[in-house]
Amino acid sequence: MAMAVAEVSNKQVVLKNYVTGFPKETDMEVVTTKITLKVPESSNEGILLKNLYLSCDPYMRGRMTKPDRPSYVDSFTPGKPIMGYGVSKVLDSQNPTFKPGDLVWGITGWEEYSLITSPQLFFKIEHTDVPLSYYTGILGMPGMTAYAGFYEVGAPKKGERVFVSAASGAVGQLVGQLAKLAGCYIVGSAGSKEKVDLLKNKFGFDEAFNYKEEEDLDAALRRFVTAYMKLDRSSAGFEGIDIYFENVGGKMLDAVLLSMRLHGRIPVCGMISQYNLQQPEGVHNLLCLISKRIRMEGFVVVDFYHLYPKYVEWILPHIKEGRVTYVEDIAEGLESAPSALVGLFSGRNVGKQLLVVLKN
Amino acid sequence: MAMAVAEVSNKQVVLKNYVTGFPKETDMEVVTTKITLKVPESSNEGILLKNLYLSCDPYMRGRMTKPDRPSYVDSFTPGKPIMGYGVSKVLDSQNPTFKPGDLVWGITGWEEYSLITSPQLFFKIEHTDVPLSYYTGILGMPGMTAYAGFYEVGAPKKGERVFVSAASGAVGQLVGQLAKLAGCYIVGSAGSKEKVDLLKNKFGFDEAFNYKEEEDLDAALRRFVTAYMKLDRSSAGFEGIDIYFENVGGKMLDAVLLSMRLHGRIPVCGMISQYNLQQPEGVHNLLCLISKRIRMEGFVVVDFYHLYPKYVEWILPHIKEGRVTYVEDIAEGLESAPSALVGLFSGRNVGKQLLVVLKN
Ligand SMILES: NC(=O)c1ccc[n+]([C@@H]2O[C@H](COP(=O)([O-])OP(=O)(O)OC[C@H]3O[C@@H](n4cnc5c(N)ncnc54)[C@H](OP(=O)(O)O)[C@@H]3O)[C@@H](O)[C@H]2O)c1
Ligand SMILES: NC(=O)c1ccc[n+]([C@@H]2O[C@H](COP(=O)([O-])OP(=O)(O)OC[C@H]3O[C@@H](n4cnc5c(N)ncnc54)[C@H](OP(=O)(O)O)[C@@H]3O)[C@@H](O)[C@H]2O)c1
Repeated sequence: MAMAVAEVSNKQVVLKNYVTGFPKETDMEVVTTKITLKVPESSNEGILLKNLYLSCDPYMRGRMTKPDRPSYVDSFTPGKPIMGYGVSKVLDSQNPTFKPGDLVWGITGWEEYSLITSPQLFFKIEHTDVPLSYYTGILGMPGMTAYAGFYEVGAPKKGERVFVSAASGAVGQLVGQLAKLAGCYIVGSAGSKEKVDLLKNKFGFDEAFNYKEEEDLDAALRRFVTAYMKLDRSSAGFEGIDIYFENVGGKMLDAVLLSMRLHGRIPVCGMISQYNLQQPEGVHNLLCLISKRIRMEGFVVVDFYHLYPKYVEWILPHIKEGRVTYVEDIAEGLESAPSALVGLFSGRNVGKQLLVVLKN
Repeated sequence: MAMAVAEVSNKQVVLKNYVTGFPKETDMEVVTTKITLKVPESSNEGILLKNLYLSCDPYMRGRMTKPDRPSYVDSFTPGKPIMGYGVSKVLDSQNPTFKPGDLVWGITGWEEYSLITSPQLFFKIEHTDVPLSYYTGILGMPGMTAYAGFYEVGAPKKGERVFVSAASGAVGQLVGQLAKLAGCYIVGSAGSKEKVDLLKNKFGFDEAFNYKEEEDLDAALRRFVTAYMKLDRSSAGFEGIDIYFENVGGKMLDAVLLSMRLHGRIPVCGMISQYNLQQPEGVHNLLCLISKRIRMEGFVVVDFYHLYPKYVEWILPHIKEGRVTYVEDIAEGLESAPSALVGLFSGRNVGKQLLVVLKN
């Protein structure tokens, strides 16, 4: 006779309704339900997780929108807990790949405990001599995003000039450091003096500016393009940005297009400035793509997860030996989750925004 | 003692002033000057050309604009003849590569006779068993543009779905035929019923529509996406356009972005709808680049001229054996030149617009 397993309470962050415009804390609510800490016998691959850290990611906004035409990302279901990347401990498993006690990262529920019925997209955590929370950031999805976007899509060459927007965030802070490791000149933009200081003093950016204080982004970028020219007069032709790692879209993209250099590349990672607009802003300077032979390429990190083991082996020594650093912004408890998530869209986070799921 | 060479009269098409907005015939004027039909002895590489055919190309509009910031294309000089691709006969040469009697194509003056002091960018015409005028079109710059843009930048695969705008023009009509040769499904848009008929009945497009008669370009494209689905139900995932060969920009690009397919490619060849606007239109749907992993890549044909000999050897048999056809719109005499050039921007041309330089 199977031993009876007690139900425990399970706090969850639930989407109340589909969101239009900027998301608000009140678009979500924290409720308490019950869960049995056991994978049903009928499941042949399920795992039961205790969630430790949850990652607040801008793309989650897209899943809060009511679907209209077929999309490549499913929407959340109102009334159900929202989902997102997290670091979890396996409590029970019917899956040969995972056993109780394993630490994993992947897409879980925003709740204390989650039953995952098909855990194909979970990675086992092998290295625990770094902060476990890093698996929501530099050692997780955002880390892989920076790595794949910069190296695979951006194809940097030594000495090139790189610009990244949302530069102090989960992805941006790493893009900057990868650019330095690749021998590039790196400039970043961010939304506060505190963030600009971080860029220059902690992440080693060559230059950084607060885009909110620049009336004319084109002029701001030209200033930095000129700064580049002082650095290196040897390069032939027009000066400018070789790689723009695109995180924000809109007006910044429009300005950057004017300052791109011949054969420049724009890995299009995100356009956070557009996610909450009813009608996205228009980008006017796409003619630059032709005369400057620019390649602009959208990518999604999941297409590069086969490189994850290689990435981890490569980045771990950099982290442990202090060549790469990572700043996190850690909110506490599921009650803070709606506010932490919503804060991404006003730039409240300084560094990677995540949440530690506290047990009461 | 060198024999004296008589001066002859030389009709020229001169730019009167820098152009803003749509170009007008009166932005140019036809004047008559004199020229000596001999390369000066002091020149060590000059050639003297008799111009036979002149090519009307949309990019020439850019050279009529007053330069503001450094650009990759030089502007024309008001008061001087404009320049453009042409087919010419060498009358005199101080250049070891060219001898009198040679036929060449390259950038020459819009005039009867041109002295070219550094003819690095001229190609010798080896095959004269096709119409000589083809070297302004299918066997010249527009031909290479279609070839390089479609094959090198577009990277087509058999069975893919291709859409091309300005489809009946110098470049577009060939893109469509290349797509058919590559085993693709090809849809084109053009600006009149006559052009749409050409696309379907002469160039073998699978579908074509008159964009001027479509209120909602997105809906028009969806209609064609649905047409594709009927053609091939085997392909997994979302249906849509694999390659958009971009000739027009603006609203069409915005609509196409919504109908692109996963891992689609957009070779950005031109954006003719934007060339005459003071402020280019905004493109709103760039977020599609990310979710659909779209690569959008600007290119300029001159970067691919090393492939020209290979292209000619490949396309010639297709032309001679009737598998590829080419429609030209031939204006007569330099007096018609301003009107022929300006007509490109209202779609007056049907097929490749060129000019035969008549001798009176
Ligand atoms: N393609 C992929 O697979 C993939 C994967 C991960 C992330 N992404 C994208 O990468 C980008 C960065 O993500 P992240 O996780 O690193 O986020 P993050 O930078 O840690 O947080 C978002 C930041 O964006 C900035 N921001 C918010 N609204 C803005 C606006 N209107 N204009 C300009 N900046 C604004 C804010 O910083 P400031 O204070 O500097 O404004 C905010 O802190 C996002 O666009 C995200 O969607 C894409
Ligand atoms: N990147 C390169 O190296 C390169 C080289 C050659 C050409 N190009 C570009 O390729 C494109 C096609 O050139 P082409 O030589 O083949 O010209 P073309 O198609 O023979 O002639 C121009 C055509 O553009 C269309 N058009 C004009 N204004 C328009 C508007 N506002 N909206 C939509 N369509 C408009 C008209 O056709 P409809 O009647 O269909 O409107 C017109 O007949 C141009 O953008 C050109 O700049 C680029």
